[in-house]
Amino acid sequence: MTKPVDIAALATGVAAGDRRALARAITLVESGRSDHRAQAMALLDTLGTSRQALRIGLSGTPGVGKSTFIESFGLMLTARGLRVAVLAVDPSSARSGGSILGDKTRMDLLAREPLAFIRPSPSQTQLGGVARRTREAVALCEAAGYDIVLIETVGVGQSETVVAQMADVFLLLLAPAGGDELQGVKRGIMEIADLILINKADGDLKPQAMRTCADYAGALRLLRKRSQDPDGFPKAMTVSALETIGITAAWDDIQTLVAWRRENNLWETTRADQARYWFAQEVQAQLLARLTADPDLQARMTRLEQDVAAGRKTPAAAAAEVVAKT
Amino acid sequence: MTKPVDIAALATGVAAGDRRALARAITLVESGRSDHRAQAMALLDTLGTSRQALRIGLSGTPGVGKSTFIESFGLMLTARGLRVAVLAVDPSSARSGGSILGDKTRMDLLAREPLAFIRPSPSQTQLGGVARRTREAVALCEAAGYDIVLIETVGVGQSETVVAQMADVFLLLLAPAGGDELQGVKRGIMEIADLILINKADGDLKPQAMRTCADYAGALRLLRKRSQDPDGFPKAMTVSALETIGITAAWDDIQTLVAWRRENNLWETTRADQARYWFAQEVQAQLLARLTADPDLQARMTRLEQDVAAGRKTPAAAAAEVVAKT
Repeated sequence: MTKPVDIAALATGVAAGDRRALARAITLVESGRSDHRAQAMALLDTLGTSRQALRIGLSGTPGVGKSTFIESFGLMLTARGLRVAVLAVDPSSARSGGSILGDKTRMDLLAREPLAFIRPSPSQTQLGGVARRTREAVALCEAAGYDIVLIETVGVGQSETVVAQMADVFLLLLAPAGGDELQGVKRGIMEIADLILINKADGDLKPQAMRTCADYAGALRLLRKRSQDPDGFPKAMTVSALETIGITAAWDDIQTLVAWRRENNLWETTRADQARYWFAQEVQAQLLARLTADPDLQARMTRLEQDVAAGRKTPAAAAAEVVAKT
Repeated sequence: MTKPVDIAALATGVAAGDRRALARAITLVESGRSDHRAQAMALLDTLGTSRQALRIGLSGTPGVGKSTFIESFGLMLTARGLRVAVLAVDPSSARSGGSILGDKTRMDLLAREPLAFIRPSPSQTQLGGVARRTREAVALCEAAGYDIVLIETVGVGQSETVVAQMADVFLLLLAPAGGDELQGVKRGIMEIADLILINKADGDLKPQAMRTCADYAGALRLLRKRSQDPDGFPKAMTVSALETIGITAAWDDIQTLVAWRRENNLWETTRADQARYWFAQEVQAQLLARLTADPDLQARMTRLEQDVAAGRKTPAAAAAEVVAKT
């Protein structure tokens, strides 16, 4: 993307649901170049926020069958005529440059489905930036008319909290486990999850999956009810992504949950809260970008950085000197 | 901490190794109040950076026996006359308010050891702030004359990357697992880890621990050698925190690794790189703090926030308006 981007044409393409235009638009929002950033903002502004998709966050540690689930779930949705976009947030790739959705062949059938759009995670090096750009990629998918945007994440840490800030519904996918392993899920994630899906409820693992499901259902009952939950939610259930069992039931539950939240005015208030969160994140990122664009300040920062590196100043004290001069 | 803090007296107490002074100082750096922030910066500045501890990052998902390991490892160190501080970074507690070291009784013996200092993780609500304050808590422990600072973290995501930015050596603790579960560790963490310790190498699990260790040793050999590694590192080994087996061997390996890095001038260059990283983080945080302290800008931000929440502006476009006026 070295030649100037025709933002109006790109916006038209995205709004028309053209997948190649969408892919190019996402590449633009992921770019670290400042001219690209300005173009990305213009593009997002042109597209507006009038179209909304159902944004579903999905988390689960590697090995629980996330890609198999996404494929089963995605194909069930496209069979209903729904357009599905799949994005990934992978903060740990900041260092490795790896990508959890990098291998599209992991979702072979879904990738070939005309109603589906699969986007590998960006291989950015900037912590935090990955999530911010993913949020804009979600907005692009909405503008492109996708009905469902699935945001995949890995791990038991900060990434779930960030994805929860861009999702309407949050799914946690787990593998069958012994009772001792119940502690393997952090309380923070239990509180984010709307639906806990115990995968691999097939073959020899089925009894263990049922037990694990009962364990989590019990654990969920111990948690305080959240204002955004109708009766019976959050819920634990078994699925088999491999044998496509429980996938439709999970979708039915998601729809029940979303309908309830819409009726109770929670859909819009949650989206508004999320927008405020991302606004704060953007302010922070843009302040820093402006600072590093000023040559004098940049020179001062370089000197202070040397002082910090040599242990002559603490990071906080040196930062205070920079900020005082802006 | 409502009355004014006598920074000079607190600094003297911390430098003298007084544990209560250290605890108060950490509470000060963890505080979100702006007057406390200024005092914390003055305190860190007064204490300087002349004392260095060995900073050891430790990661492992819940259930692998982290607290048992920290207790075994910590008691082995205090038995050698070394002073040990234990801190925690728990980004997922941002939402739950939970705390991975909250229950000190998890490390009963170590907590009663005069040479040890155990600090629960802060229950801050601000993402990112947790790690920043932990880094300053590490600096306080160094100033207090601790020889070893152990920084505990949970998960397979961003927290490890952040802790690696404040650690000299990074340990990854794992439980014995079947071959299929090898993929459960993200490549990013494999690249951060200097030592992979397969815990629970005792009783019935011992053979499985040995196999898991062999699997990881094999996986490590497939990774490209990093410039900061002597021959044989990163290394996988079995330990039993419960039966105190392999704990001393792990410590010997850490010392070998650190000695090699010091000889090869890598200790200082890595610390300098880390200081630069934290400087950048501080600049960002302080810019935002100043912005929110200006009443006019705050009023403008509130109006823009309403526009963003109502979907009239995108987060990025609204943020650009704020930043343009500062």
